[in-house]
Amino acid sequence: MELKDLAPLLLKKERANGDVDAAVLTDVLRDGSDANARRKQLVALIERHPVLSDRDMMFRNHDERYSFGLKKVAHFVQFLKNQKIVDANEQETMYKALGEPLCIDVHNSMFVPTLENQGDDDQRAKWLPLARSFKILGAYAQTELGHGSNVQGVETVATYDKATQEFVVDSPTLTSRKWWPGGLGKTANHAIVHARLFLDGEDVGVQAFLVQIRSMEDHEPLPGIEVGDIGPKVGFNAIDNGYCAFHKIRIPRENMMMRYAKVLPDGTFVKPKSDKLVYLTMVHVRANLVENFALTMAKAAAITTRFSAARIQGRTPDNKGEFQVLDYQNQQHKLFPFIAISYAAKFAARDMMARHDSAVEIVKSGNAGFGAKLAALHAVSSGLKAWLAEKVSDGVESCRRLCGGHGFTQSSNLAHLFNEIVGANTFEGTFDVLVQQHARYMLKVLAGVKTLDESEPATRFLAKIETYADPTLRFSAQTPEDFGDLNLLVEAFEVRATRILLALATQMKATKNNGNACMVLMSRVSNAHAELMLLEALANGVSAIPAGPEQRSVVHLCSLFGAWLMTKSLGDFRQHDYLSSQQVERVREQVVRLLPVIRKNCVLLTDAWDFSDFELNSTIGRYDGDIYRALVKRAADEPLNKTQVPEGYEKYLKPLIQSDL
Amino acid sequence: MELKDLAPLLLKKERANGDVDAAVLTDVLRDGSDANARRKQLVALIERHPVLSDRDMMFRNHDERYSFGLKKVAHFVQFLKNQKIVDANEQETMYKALGEPLCIDVHNSMFVPTLENQGDDDQRAKWLPLARSFKILGAYAQTELGHGSNVQGVETVATYDKATQEFVVDSPTLTSRKWWPGGLGKTANHAIVHARLFLDGEDVGVQAFLVQIRSMEDHEPLPGIEVGDIGPKVGFNAIDNGYCAFHKIRIPRENMMMRYAKVLPDGTFVKPKSDKLVYLTMVHVRANLVENFALTMAKAAAITTRFSAARIQGRTPDNKGEFQVLDYQNQQHKLFPFIAISYAAKFAARDMMARHDSAVEIVKSGNAGFGAKLAALHAVSSGLKAWLAEKVSDGVESCRRLCGGHGFTQSSNLAHLFNEIVGANTFEGTFDVLVQQHARYMLKVLAGVKTLDESEPATRFLAKIETYADPTLRFSAQTPEDFGDLNLLVEAFEVRATRILLALATQMKATKNNGNACMVLMSRVSNAHAELMLLEALANGVSAIPAGPEQRSVVHLCSLFGAWLMTKSLGDFRQHDYLSSQQVERVREQVVRLLPVIRKNCVLLTDAWDFSDFELNSTIGRYDGDIYRALVKRAADEPLNKTQVPEGYEKYLKPLIQSDL
Repeated sequence: MELKDLAPLLLKKERANGDVDAAVLTDVLRDGSDANARRKQLVALIERHPVLSDRDMMFRNHDERYSFGLKKVAHFVQFLKNQKIVDANEQETMYKALGEPLCIDVHNSMFVPTLENQGDDDQRAKWLPLARSFKILGAYAQTELGHGSNVQGVETVATYDKATQEFVVDSPTLTSRKWWPGGLGKTANHAIVHARLFLDGEDVGVQAFLVQIRSMEDHEPLPGIEVGDIGPKVGFNAIDNGYCAFHKIRIPRENMMMRYAKVLPDGTFVKPKSDKLVYLTMVHVRANLVENFALTMAKAAAITTRFSAARIQGRTPDNKGEFQVLDYQNQQHKLFPFIAISYAAKFAARDMMARHDSAVEIVKSGNAGFGAKLAALHAVSSGLKAWLAEKVSDGVESCRRLCGGHGFTQSSNLAHLFNEIVGANTFEGTFDVLVQQHARYMLKVLAGVKTLDESEPATRFLAKIETYADPTLRFSAQTPEDFGDLNLLVEAFEVRATRILLALATQMKATKNNGNACMVLMSRVSNAHAELMLLEALANGVSAIPAGPEQRSVVHLCSLFGAWLMTKSLGDFRQHDYLSSQQVERVREQVVRLLPVIRKNCVLLTDAWDFSDFELNSTIGRYDGDIYRALVKRAADEPLNKTQVPEGYEKYLKPLIQSDL
Repeated sequence: MELKDLAPLLLKKERANGDVDAAVLTDVLRDGSDANARRKQLVALIERHPVLSDRDMMFRNHDERYSFGLKKVAHFVQFLKNQKIVDANEQETMYKALGEPLCIDVHNSMFVPTLENQGDDDQRAKWLPLARSFKILGAYAQTELGHGSNVQGVETVATYDKATQEFVVDSPTLTSRKWWPGGLGKTANHAIVHARLFLDGEDVGVQAFLVQIRSMEDHEPLPGIEVGDIGPKVGFNAIDNGYCAFHKIRIPRENMMMRYAKVLPDGTFVKPKSDKLVYLTMVHVRANLVENFALTMAKAAAITTRFSAARIQGRTPDNKGEFQVLDYQNQQHKLFPFIAISYAAKFAARDMMARHDSAVEIVKSGNAGFGAKLAALHAVSSGLKAWLAEKVSDGVESCRRLCGGHGFTQSSNLAHLFNEIVGANTFEGTFDVLVQQHARYMLKVLAGVKTLDESEPATRFLAKIETYADPTLRFSAQTPEDFGDLNLLVEAFEVRATRILLALATQMKATKNNGNACMVLMSRVSNAHAELMLLEALANGVSAIPAGPEQRSVVHLCSLFGAWLMTKSLGDFRQHDYLSSQQVERVREQVVRLLPVIRKNCVLLTDAWDFSDFELNSTIGRYDGDIYRALVKRAADEPLNKTQVPEGYEKYLKPLIQSDL
């Protein structure tokens, strides 16, 4: 049989060999069958649209991507209106189906929400209708050339001029120019600008201002505004991330966001009341991000699992046939943990969103205890974000490598998935900042461990601190069953997290709270706790799955996840011989033992996410395994193939070939 | 002081604080000052050329990169002729300064060498002059859509027709089309084609044929040839990696490469004599690749170190100033090991090249012992390539993340470095294939350990196998000095490599030599041995450096490298309590303790590679630290900034802003 026909059969066979009903897991992963059906309907709307279904991003450079993206934006806004899609979540689902973020991304995700949350009633009434209907297109201009997400470093200055009741906004230095904001370069005609406010020469801190940057008539930059695009990036190339410099431009007093801090007409500064809700917004953004990590990891794992099943390579030892790539132990060993990460992240995102929602309820009801819950939630979300951003980016890239040369081709879509997710290591807090926040929170909980709040799920394991800190404690697993026991696994991660945290506390004391001198250890605390939380989320998630082969298969995933994580940090688990040298060997065996068990259902476990081929957009990740025809078909679309003889032939190639050099 | 002016000063200060003379190290890293001076001269020639100095790759998509690349190729060939640069190494130096590989890459690196090595005298006389003067432009067409580097899977067929003394070359299936060869898509007019040869219906194995694929007159594909470009990839986008299908095209008998195997006019097959030299070629390619890993890691580390020194971010605890990014413990902890990897890889590449050259001498002199040396060299090169491809790719990407948002910008050049090096995980043997070759070789040495050849540097540590296997053996380091003792460190890595190898031997026996069932362990054997070899290469490399601060600084790098590697694999070192739980803590302390020591000279250690700004091509990696002006200047080149108002405004943006939606 020809390979092109064999590939689909091999994938089919793989599904037939499993005992899992993917639809049962889909219900769990996609929040019920109704929600999933609606989701698919919405994605299909995009798929059927002549412009919005475009998937030719890979052929375009940054400026072409931006230009085509602008076209998509115009069609998208019109389409939502025509289709009467008004629910924000449904709009989001459709937006994500466009395949890459576009120039209105920040307008929707940051500009409008800032007006909503930081504008006072008058401001909201004035600007929100315009912003929501895209009359004003906004950017969120906080970061500058000289300073990233460190708001306190902002150099842009706003000086209040009492005489005219205006702010004079100025970029006093080269590095004070706004740098990076999405949509700022070519699209936005307004921006929320963060600037250091001076009142009568006094610095009252960084405030947010609404600044018009381009004419509403012809889109030309307004006088005193220098604005443009910062150039190509690793990802987000359909977005015009921009720069902007202000040369003493004037805006009315009413353009400062006045919901919290205020400047009165006479220049009096009214200090903001404390705004803990900002943290809730941040947690919401993070929960969405964790969900996004789950989906991206799941996409990459689905593509790679299908490819590995459909692709054969290398003779079997009996020389009678060829291995499926999925047969290789290394392939399984590298790939299957990523399936586990996608499930764990999904359950963690759900937990986090539920906790966010209940925090919102507490705020609304005015109950006490809000502060502590919020602090926990914020810290936990920091640690999870730091871990997942790193591991999911690396995981997607590993998946790409697991697909060999065909993974290296852009039509696999794996490189695109990587480029779009890897930015998450930088935005919304870098690793170093997040792990510090997380670790410092854990130190605080440790300091108050005698009055530990055991209703707080993320840290209640510290109730067992005395047992866990005891250097004579031993991991009790002996048999393979023990090593697969989720409770025992979780306990081991609790012990490990406790001990590193104690080591950090000791080191902080020894360095007189010099955080920088303890940063490597802080990272270990954060990562150890994040791994505990993810393992727990996955272990708890099992209970959401009806008993049967589906539940069993996720238990296996969870066992693998725990054992695999252990093998990555054996130094921790071996500390004070909590695990013996022999037990380490058992853990390693356990990982290898689980590979064929999981392989039985691996395709179905990734099918369960129910991505359409349109969503995966991958020649080698097709549901039907018809990868070779897809690769050939996609190559035909390459612009270089429009002509048989390349453009530069006459000018460059012919002289080379035919002249006498 | 303005940040833009502070940045250069900070970098300058960093250099002033060091006690190393970078030039002393440059001599070591660049093979002496004469060679380095000549190298710089050649690079400067490119830098001064109006076309060849182009660095606008990041603004172009694949087809634009190809087209511009063609222009560069034409100018390059002409320029070499004008400048009378005939030495292959000098040509290579200049080629590398072009900034990205071009469509004649494979012509030079594979097509011409194949004619040289596999053509008989007549064939060489006929084709080499044409190929060397670019009259015929060649591709190397081995891989197919259905099979990668597994040559035995080739489906393309060549059938000998005695009557006409021709081969009929055919692509019988969709998956048999050649897929991936560089230059095949639009540039090459000839190709070395690997096809399964049938003589009188008998399969005599895969042979190489020279096939003309395009007309020499007008470059149109010849009848029966379908050829084109496979589309955009992660890297190599100036190259037209292509596909090609043959529809029963005919080539003369003389077009089979006949140096080894032959087909006589009557269809008699003459079997090839054994060709061990093929391995030598492979080792040569690998040694060059290891050198390339060193240079790429060094470039990324230089950019990141300079940026980290010049960039400030985040208040110091006393709130009086801001930290340099380089002040952060995590930044040092993540970055400095990459400096060590670059040095280790450089010394390993030098060793490998020296061993290759001496093997060539042995072959020439006809001495015995050639086979064993070659097998060792090949195995070692496999393991080093597998380890370095992974770690250097990951290292470059880590460097990119360490530069935050500015690293995410293409003008940092870090993403480009990543995209060009990461393919090395796939080409010239994937990780899984290489670690198996390496591990199987180690098993063979182990099996013959009683008659161990102690003159073989890579495996002579197995002479101590009894000591090393003894589970009562303990790592003797106690003081920080002990943990920095290079001999003790190397010994620890020998112990570890020995023990994993023994475990593999046991597992192979238990699984009746089922390699696939032992693949995870094989990977560990290969990586453990590769780390030992790299650590040894770096430790031995120290002796090439004159005594003094320069040597001391590399000793520190080596200490860090060893301790850091240990912390990554503590499970191994803790096995049978070779390291105690307490010693593990000392290793971790050692890593942290060395960070400020290395920081003192870190900029100079990366300066020592003596890359010009033109070579690094990075806005944020400039020697002078003037990063902010460079970022602003480079952004101005973005094509979107040619107009103030973007192209799609009238059609898409204006209706959105001005109409009533």
